[in-house]
Amino acid sequence: MSVTRAQGFRAAGVAAGLKSTGAPDVALVVNDGPSTAAAAVFTSNRCRANPVIWSAEAIRTGSARAVVLNSGGANCYTGAEGFQLTHATAELVAELLSDGGSGPRAENGAVGAIDVQVCSTGLIGLLNDRDDLLAGVRAAHAELSDDGGAAAATAIMTTDSVSKQAAAEGSDAEGRTFTVGGMAKGAGMLAPALATMLVVVTTDADVDAATLDTALRGATRVTFDRLDSDGCQSTNDTVLLLASGASGATPSVEALTEQVTAVCHDLALQLLADAEGADHEIAIEVLNAATEDDAVEVARSVARSNLFKTAIFGKDPNWGRILASVGTTGAAFDPADLDVALNGVWVCRDSGPGESPDAVSLEDRAVTVTIDLKSGESTATVWTNDLTHAYVHENSAYSS
Amino acid sequence: MSVTRAQGFRAAGVAAGLKSTGAPDVALVVNDGPSTAAAAVFTSNRCRANPVIWSAEAIRTGSARAVVLNSGGANCYTGAEGFQLTHATAELVAELLSDGGSGPRAENGAVGAIDVQVCSTGLIGLLNDRDDLLAGVRAAHAELSDDGGAAAATAIMTTDSVSKQAAAEGSDAEGRTFTVGGMAKGAGMLAPALATMLVVVTTDADVDAATLDTALRGATRVTFDRLDSDGCQSTNDTVLLLASGASGATPSVEALTEQVTAVCHDLALQLLADAEGADHEIAIEVLNAATEDDAVEVARSVARSNLFKTAIFGKDPNWGRILASVGTTGAAFDPADLDVALNGVWVCRDSGPGESPDAVSLEDRAVTVTIDLKSGESTATVWTNDLTHAYVHENSAYSS
Repeated sequence: MSVTRAQGFRAAGVAAGLKSTGAPDVALVVNDGPSTAAAAVFTSNRCRANPVIWSAEAIRTGSARAVVLNSGGANCYTGAEGFQLTHATAELVAELLSDGGSGPRAENGAVGAIDVQVCSTGLIGLLNDRDDLLAGVRAAHAELSDDGGAAAATAIMTTDSVSKQAAAEGSDAEGRTFTVGGMAKGAGMLAPALATMLVVVTTDADVDAATLDTALRGATRVTFDRLDSDGCQSTNDTVLLLASGASGATPSVEALTEQVTAVCHDLALQLLADAEGADHEIAIEVLNAATEDDAVEVARSVARSNLFKTAIFGKDPNWGRILASVGTTGAAFDPADLDVALNGVWVCRDSGPGESPDAVSLEDRAVTVTIDLKSGESTATVWTNDLTHAYVHENSAYSS
Repeated sequence: MSVTRAQGFRAAGVAAGLKSTGAPDVALVVNDGPSTAAAAVFTSNRCRANPVIWSAEAIRTGSARAVVLNSGGANCYTGAEGFQLTHATAELVAELLSDGGSGPRAENGAVGAIDVQVCSTGLIGLLNDRDDLLAGVRAAHAELSDDGGAAAATAIMTTDSVSKQAAAEGSDAEGRTFTVGGMAKGAGMLAPALATMLVVVTTDADVDAATLDTALRGATRVTFDRLDSDGCQSTNDTVLLLASGASGATPSVEALTEQVTAVCHDLALQLLADAEGADHEIAIEVLNAATEDDAVEVARSVARSNLFKTAIFGKDPNWGRILASVGTTGAAFDPADLDVALNGVWVCRDSGPGESPDAVSLEDRAVTVTIDLKSGESTATVWTNDLTHAYVHENSAYSS
């Protein structure tokens, strides 16, 4: 159920004192091979944190031997000193793996800092204590184990109320089984093109970096990219996919994409369910759009309407606010011919009142909004949360 | 201080029973000429309310004899019956002015429905009671007076806590004075390209419809269009400018634009101050942008960040959330070289920590955020509010 579910991976999570609570805050995931192929997607925010600047360069090798993650400080907008700390963290991991590690790189010589991906999460503008962080990395390395996935998933939590893990299995054309496992952190602040979200997915499939890249981009496009809790884009978002090749299975890119998507979908819905202060998980389905882009644009416009989101919090089946959001988009549709359903009740037909809103119950956490554009055959779903008193409380009281 | 401040206008506001509270809910503004030149801007939302569909067609004549406005129901997404009610309202006003009215059209024959602008505000999807509404129009006509502006301003309120009026004076090249007066309703839901906002501005200048149109678009572009309370666009927004010519003054388009802008600016800040449930009025100034569009894009991205808006509510000088919003834009800037001030304290220098955030006080309602892009010479300001518990409460409990 985690990053150590697939063969060839070890992980650990320890408390290094970066969090004032004393909770675990440094995680390490190591790929012992035989392969170290890797791919990544990062936030599209132009103001990126130091670990993202580092990791985006390092991943260009198509290879990663390890990922070191810390919570307790995002190392974002911390200037040159912050970048140096990211680099020092990667160097230390490389050094530790070169000295006492196993796997292909250690056997063939030293592991370099460039083989180490770095992720940070927490308060922006805060530089972590260098000694605490590096001591935490040493401690995590000492605790690496085949079943350390759960500890790692716990160590990357910030305001998450639970840790998030998922796994799936597939097989290649010869019937050889491969496993995909993953962990994620993130609660609130989810947005298109990723947001304060760290995800590490591992697999024991034996595939090259290009195949991993295709599978990862295919998976994130329809999962994390369609999660839009509050429309805000983080500076630190990272989704990594590492392959050890330890299973010997050589799945097609389609077979791999299917299982990576399954794991990402599972993790995305766990993130949605744990969004800061939300009372409802809302799926916004757009039907019969002219293009998939139109469907996504319409769904996202509704997902970003504070008026819609407060209405759902108030259990008010307010379809007028939904139409008002649809009307702000450039998608193809006839403004006089839209249908809208809330939890299956078509409260709006032909852009006018339909079935009685009294038939809609919004008591359950799960809410489905369906918008029929009657303009084509494409469809898409975007997930969001309602806007609640608790959201305002958590985000006004907690500096991040 | 209102729509009856300029010569040549009468107005009234009455209670027609559309609001369950019994508060005034029908307003009428009549232009007695000698001119009836008029211009308007409407919501850019593609899902428009029936009164907007009607008025946008009718204003193409460049003339308006009267404006009839109701609160208590937006007449939006109410289908063919709703459009018929809008038309019937305009027809009744025309009939009343033809029978007993004064002014150019009455003297020269009948006033037509096409000479009447219609505005509605209130719950979407609700059709107002036809008999109540038309009786209200008759009552308003009977009460028209030279000092009815304040009553009209009160009758268009919905969740507004106070009525909004403003006035300004200018003079033409020959030194003849002209007056501009206006009223507005709107509380929350303000967004670019207008939002649940009705504004009627009158002037006794003697200018043609094309001049009015230029002046009105020039004024709204830098006032109402830069007010972004919650990013949501309404279906009913309308800003009207009517000219009676009664002063005999013939100002240049620049002189007229200046005074119309002054009135719109005053009304916009009154709307901002009365936004639903806000604790702070926030001005987001962007300096040294490559273009004005860049400046507006950057300011608006910050104005729409729920994380930034909750931080201000929590009196947290969280400049990281500001940079994270700036990073989502396509504006020209160097992500490593941004400065940010909160109430004049430069808490962020060169995209890193600057002066101590402890020096920032966010106790006052007025907050100024300054963002220096260091990329050019353009500037722009967008106004917004914080995101509070009261916003969530009002918009979850009140169906609109």
